[in-house]
Amino acid sequence: MPQIYFEDITEGTIRDIGSYTVPQDEMIAFSKQYDPQPIHIDEEAASKSVFGDIIASGWYTACICMRLLVDEFLGETVSIGSPGLDELSWTTPVYAGDTLTVENEILDTRLSESRDDRGYVRNQTRAYNQDNDMVISWIATTIVLCRDAR
Amino acid sequence: MPQIYFEDITEGTIRDIGSYTVPQDEMIAFSKQYDPQPIHIDEEAASKSVFGDIIASGWYTACICMRLLVDEFLGETVSIGSPGLDELSWTTPVYAGDTLTVENEILDTRLSESRDDRGYVRNQTRAYNQDNDMVISWIATTIVLCRDAR
Repeated sequence: MPQIYFEDITEGTIRDIGSYTVPQDEMIAFSKQYDPQPIHIDEEAASKSVFGDIIASGWYTACICMRLLVDEFLGETVSIGSPGLDELSWTTPVYAGDTLTVENEILDTRLSESRDDRGYVRNQTRAYNQDNDMVISWIATTIVLCRDAR
Repeated sequence: MPQIYFEDITEGTIRDIGSYTVPQDEMIAFSKQYDPQPIHIDEEAASKSVFGDIIASGWYTACICMRLLVDEFLGETVSIGSPGLDELSWTTPVYAGDTLTVENEILDTRLSESRDDRGYVRNQTRAYNQDNDMVISWIATTIVLCRDAR
C-alpha cells in the first residue's frame, strides 16, 4: 500500500534504490524490440566499433532504473504521474554483466498553485557501474498527493 | 546500410517517422517488467483513477517512438550514439488501441570542436494520437559522423 505522501518528501533526501546486474539476453532482447541499432544487437558490428562490444540501449538502462525506482520508492509513493523529465544523460556505456547501483535525490518540492491536494517533486535518479562510473542520470518531476488532500 | 552522414542533415527538416497502434498485451507486459505502478498494470486501480483505465508507461511510449525512429531515420544514419535528452514531456495519456503518429524535426546541427570527423544533431521527436493530441516529445542530441571523416 502506498504510504509516502507529499508531506513526507524532504528536499535533499538521497535514497539507495538498489542494484541490478544486466543480463545479456534481456539487454539484447530489449534492443531488438525497441532500439535495434547495430551497436545494441550485432556482435560483429559492435566489436568493430569504438565500444568494442554490444552496449545497452540507453532506454534499457533507463528502464532498469525505473523498475528499481518503482520497487524501492515510487511504488510506495502516492504519485499520480509525471509531466516529464529533463537533463537525461548517458555518461558511460553499459555492457552485459555490469552491476548498476541506483540512487535518487529529492532536489526540491513545491505545492501546486492551482490544486491544493498535490505537489510537484523534482528528483534526480543516478546510476553507477561497478567501477563507480556514472552511467545515467535524469531529473524527473513527479506529482504526489498530499496526505490531507480534500 | 547507413547512408545519412552529418553533411546530409539539414536544420528544419521534419521527417514523418510512421505510426504504431498500441497493443494492450505488449503495453502491459512492458509495464509489468519496467514500470509496475498500479495505473499501468492494475485494471481495478486504474478504473478508479482520474485516467479511468490503464495507461501506458511513459517509458513505453518513448520506446515505441524510438523503434520507429530507428526504423525510419536513425538506422540509416551514421550515428555513434547520444549523450542524452532534454525536455522530455508526457502531455496526454496513452491507452491501448491508440494509434501514435511520430515525427522528428532537426532543430540544429554543429560540428564538433574537438573532433573533426563528427557533429552534433539536436532533434525533436513528437508523437500524436488519433485525436491529434501530442502524447510525448523530447529533444535528443545525436552524434553523427561526417562523410569525409578522416
